[in-house]
Amino acid sequence: MRVVLICRYDGSRYHGFQIQPNNNTVQEEIEKSLRKIHKKNVRIYMSGRTDSGVHAYGQVLHFDTDLNIPTDGWVKAINAMIPKDIRIVSAKVVNDEFHVRYNSIKKTYSYKLYLGREIDPFLINYVGQHKFNFNFDKAKEALKYFIGEHDFSSFCSKNTSVEDKVRTIYSFKMDRDNQNDNIINFEITGNGFLYNMVRIIIGTVQDVAAGKYEPEYIQEILAKKERSFSGPKADASGLYLKEVLYDNDEVNEFINKTIDLF
Amino acid sequence: MRVVLICRYDGSRYHGFQIQPNNNTVQEEIEKSLRKIHKKNVRIYMSGRTDSGVHAYGQVLHFDTDLNIPTDGWVKAINAMIPKDIRIVSAKVVNDEFHVRYNSIKKTYSYKLYLGREIDPFLINYVGQHKFNFNFDKAKEALKYFIGEHDFSSFCSKNTSVEDKVRTIYSFKMDRDNQNDNIINFEITGNGFLYNMVRIIIGTVQDVAAGKYEPEYIQEILAKKERSFSGPKADASGLYLKEVLYDNDEVNEFINKTIDLF
Repeated sequence: MRVVLICRYDGSRYHGFQIQPNNNTVQEEIEKSLRKIHKKNVRIYMSGRTDSGVHAYGQVLHFDTDLNIPTDGWVKAINAMIPKDIRIVSAKVVNDEFHVRYNSIKKTYSYKLYLGREIDPFLINYVGQHKFNFNFDKAKEALKYFIGEHDFSSFCSKNTSVEDKVRTIYSFKMDRDNQNDNIINFEITGNGFLYNMVRIIIGTVQDVAAGKYEPEYIQEILAKKERSFSGPKADASGLYLKEVLYDNDEVNEFINKTIDLF
Repeated sequence: MRVVLICRYDGSRYHGFQIQPNNNTVQEEIEKSLRKIHKKNVRIYMSGRTDSGVHAYGQVLHFDTDLNIPTDGWVKAINAMIPKDIRIVSAKVVNDEFHVRYNSIKKTYSYKLYLGREIDPFLINYVGQHKFNFNFDKAKEALKYFIGEHDFSSFCSKNTSVEDKVRTIYSFKMDRDNQNDNIINFEITGNGFLYNMVRIIIGTVQDVAAGKYEPEYIQEILAKKERSFSGPKADASGLYLKEVLYDNDEVNEFINKTIDLF
């Protein structure tokens, strides 16, 4: 039986999602709980890894089990064993062919950018920082050049292993936070993202906002297909994996219905 | 020369404010920075200690120095050396007789209480938890019994060393958070607070809200003058030292003007 989980986590204390030797990871914490429940190793699969310090509102996971536990029993059992900065929000039994990584067709990330030299100590793990001038209108203009189908070779880490670097961005928005004037909220949706792609895109928009180059220059950076032309990688702490959607209406309905449970 | 500092910190990672051997404390971090600047030990005094996991918006500190550094120089120098979850907000030179602890006449704490069995993982270090029924009206009624001058022997930790346990509460308010319906915000102002007093008061209000006893019973608990009659200590994570005021108009004006700088 294959079980899908929606998982929300504060990534501050973790070296990312994916298991690493000698490091605290979200995957390790969840697999540890499944090991206790099954009394054997159980592998958990993720929609995509998140880096050290990156957060998730709606990470999607799956695992296979021969135990006959009702779905809310899975939620309670796992949550009772994992740290409180990771929560399983909901669980659903799916078809054995469904795979949280390979069947995903749409992902949304949000990014919180703090403008200023000193950050409120309560926000430090939850925003990225922009210390320079921030031209809101120029930044907003820059966003449109990312929308559509492009080769994003200039916007991924040099050690990206996938061959095909063409991705489609469906929407890319930014707005001032309505509670904190110093925070800019970005939201980007696409059919998939390369390694570090969102952070490099945000870092490049920061360069435009700081006046390093004009918004139109994004087109040239895309055309170069080389990492060295884009901006620096934005801070991990501002990045949130918000939602993953699938080529499966039943799973999408489950995600929409339960992602905001708490 | 005596320098007063306003200090804001996220207490999640710290074993409280006050220095302890082998533990991470806010005081140790700030004294370490002063030691580097002065090339000798410099003691820092606080308006009052905060427990492990307790936060501060407006902790007030002082230290003595023979270095002639302008006040914003102190802010920058210390902030450059301490972790980013502690920030010095502002600094002011005061009279050598002024003492941040002995001259305080009014303190305000706030408390964030989360109602529900599962807490959003992003809030876990920033709220206390209430897992039972919460009768808002009864809780609100309970608050009024704390206002005024009382012997708070029933509302302090058994190992409180001070003799005089009479304190005056000037105001005690509660309201539903306007962004998150599951959060109740408390605010309590008094001329001083005994060890664990705010947490035991909140824990007792939680008992009233859960239906363990009626609001009027607070009067009896006060009259007993014994810790065993009051409720449990509320979680440290929901408590914030919000503001300290003094018998010194100049210092109060400085606090009012700079406490919200970031």
